[in-house]
Amino acid sequence: MTPALPQLTAFLDQAGIDGYLLDADGNDSHQYYLSGYHMLDEFVTLYADERVTLLLPGPECNQAERDSAGDEIRSRAEFRNAAELEDMDPRKARKRVTVDFLDAAGIDSVSVPVSFPVGTADLLREHGIEVVPEYEYVLDEIRAVKDDREIERIRETQRAAEDGMAAAEDLLERATVADGVLHLDGDPLTSERVRDRIERAVLDRGCGLDQCIVASGPAGARAHDPGTGPLQANVPIIIDIFPRNKRTRYFGDMTRTVVKGTPSDRTREWYALVSEASEAALDTVRAGVTGETVHAAVCDVFESAGYPTDRTADDPDSGFPHATGHGVGLDVHEAPYLAQQAGELEAGHVVTVEPGLYEQGTGGVRLEDLVVVTDDGYENVTDYPRDLRVV
Amino acid sequence: MTPALPQLTAFLDQAGIDGYLLDADGNDSHQYYLSGYHMLDEFVTLYADERVTLLLPGPECNQAERDSAGDEIRSRAEFRNAAELEDMDPRKARKRVTVDFLDAAGIDSVSVPVSFPVGTADLLREHGIEVVPEYEYVLDEIRAVKDDREIERIRETQRAAEDGMAAAEDLLERATVADGVLHLDGDPLTSERVRDRIERAVLDRGCGLDQCIVASGPAGARAHDPGTGPLQANVPIIIDIFPRNKRTRYFGDMTRTVVKGTPSDRTREWYALVSEASEAALDTVRAGVTGETVHAAVCDVFESAGYPTDRTADDPDSGFPHATGHGVGLDVHEAPYLAQQAGELEAGHVVTVEPGLYEQGTGGVRLEDLVVVTDDGYENVTDYPRDLRVV
Repeated sequence: MTPALPQLTAFLDQAGIDGYLLDADGNDSHQYYLSGYHMLDEFVTLYADERVTLLLPGPECNQAERDSAGDEIRSRAEFRNAAELEDMDPRKARKRVTVDFLDAAGIDSVSVPVSFPVGTADLLREHGIEVVPEYEYVLDEIRAVKDDREIERIRETQRAAEDGMAAAEDLLERATVADGVLHLDGDPLTSERVRDRIERAVLDRGCGLDQCIVASGPAGARAHDPGTGPLQANVPIIIDIFPRNKRTRYFGDMTRTVVKGTPSDRTREWYALVSEASEAALDTVRAGVTGETVHAAVCDVFESAGYPTDRTADDPDSGFPHATGHGVGLDVHEAPYLAQQAGELEAGHVVTVEPGLYEQGTGGVRLEDLVVVTDDGYENVTDYPRDLRVV
Repeated sequence: MTPALPQLTAFLDQAGIDGYLLDADGNDSHQYYLSGYHMLDEFVTLYADERVTLLLPGPECNQAERDSAGDEIRSRAEFRNAAELEDMDPRKARKRVTVDFLDAAGIDSVSVPVSFPVGTADLLREHGIEVVPEYEYVLDEIRAVKDDREIERIRETQRAAEDGMAAAEDLLERATVADGVLHLDGDPLTSERVRDRIERAVLDRGCGLDQCIVASGPAGARAHDPGTGPLQANVPIIIDIFPRNKRTRYFGDMTRTVVKGTPSDRTREWYALVSEASEAALDTVRAGVTGETVHAAVCDVFESAGYPTDRTADDPDSGFPHATGHGVGLDVHEAPYLAQQAGELEAGHVVTVEPGLYEQGTGGVRLEDLVVVTDDGYENVTDYPRDLRVV
């Protein structure tokens, strides 16, 4: 049942470490990827000798046998014999059983992701098990390269994002303008109302939406401000939609900029630059090119036009202050990155390309597509008009 | 801006430790509770000298100044001077800046939750900072006691859960039965369709639903099986709804058991026992009573009727195999617990009381309300009929 993880095996062999260990709940994407299992509370996954073993609370074992990617399922109850567990807080005892589980598996040393809980790490170390946090981000790198099934899942979620975007545009188009703000069906049209409409649209495709940006005016320039209150006319509205499929757990991600009414010359000029930067970036994308090169293509365009970037200033709050893109998969922000110092792209990487221009106190524009890196370029999994949307 | 956290101050004073440190994203409830800030990616929060300081990526600082509960906001850019950062992977460099941030704050030792990332802990230790994972679960215990504002938020979310339940019952009531399964509007009525209806109902109250159980027949007996496919008539359907308010981030949680058609005598008998167990448990709930006592009240009822519990068997898969309840707040499973070995309840604890009876291969029934512990009893925040719902 387990996907072959030759890279992880090679990593362990080279490091001379017995196994790779996770201790997290199923919402942790490493955990879900390696175990194929989702549950609310924490559990343990061990990868050793090319086999995946799950250590679970007893009542979960039947379901994990059926649903997980584990080659073997063990119950915590099997390892509750240590005398010291008797009077231990049950939360600590749950961690402590991992010691005996590893002992029984003959594991003396484990590699763990940097996010591994220090409480468990210290307990294992106290019992003589070597715990080595790995800064090669090996599981991140493995997850970054998607196979065809994963790409299909991301594509499926991206369809939901596009439906959400179309639904949002439709609301904005049907809105009227009074006193500079949008109204629909007798009430102000707010960021919240548009977000609700987007959520219902993505739900029609089995996707959920934990967050979503619908930000007009100054909110559009603030990193991750979701937008609140009545939307403004004649200024850019940034709509950034990153739904997650409830069944597959894979994300999509896209952004468009919409103006209700008449965009200013400056907005048009900014958007033209952002489009140019997006195309310049996409022109560089292919396996073997670094994420830094893709980011540089965007920065070149903006810097030539006189705008600051993260190459010309430390944390500029206007111009182009963020990275060009990030991987998307089981997490909405994951490896690889299109940013300064970022390494080589590989075929099967799925990345956003999302240049934007912003001015604090005024607003911003952004254009974001999601693409699959291929040997000779990329395939855009976003099927939506790329122009400034004027409705 | 910071809520007074006298318990955390007292804990640090007693342990002789300089500060309490978190390194997690805003989805981590400790992080959100202490910082009052939500963002997708990781950041650092320090509690020391009764002040909360956030260490953030530069572009987040403006928004955190506006929205967070931090007394002070610092940018990572301020701490990027260490020569060794030059060629470091940016992901590691983001962790490394925490060393200089703590140095600048005069912090030599930190207490951390057991979930704190070992990668950061090891880096800090290498630089001479003492990192002590604490097994008193001090932040869990602080979060377990809700103030009036938090209780109001949980109550608000519970209204959404009730609306979801009513919407689900309505679908089941309108369904017809053919060949033992439910149909509605020409198609089989599936777990998925009911779940979708529940999600839209909770969305009407600004709540999201990451998961939700609608499980008939054997699926009802499997821990956390969400249920799939056509729903069966004349057998119990367990509906367990735990939405989260998108604005406040607080959860609600409730379960009812519904039968479409005619429940068997055995189902009625089970449900009568579960109701009796629920009332027995609720009769014990008040500040000063242990979670173990509440759990015992439920086990007594079931054991007297001849069913196994987790007191009479290790991980029974039928009878009453789970705990009686858990805290609900920013997490849907949090302290305190109503279970074996569980400690004293305090006024302001918000807990589920959720006895159930199950048989593998057959199904199960469960009844779950959410209550606030008070000095002389409890207040039930669930406003919904408690009987077996027959529609």
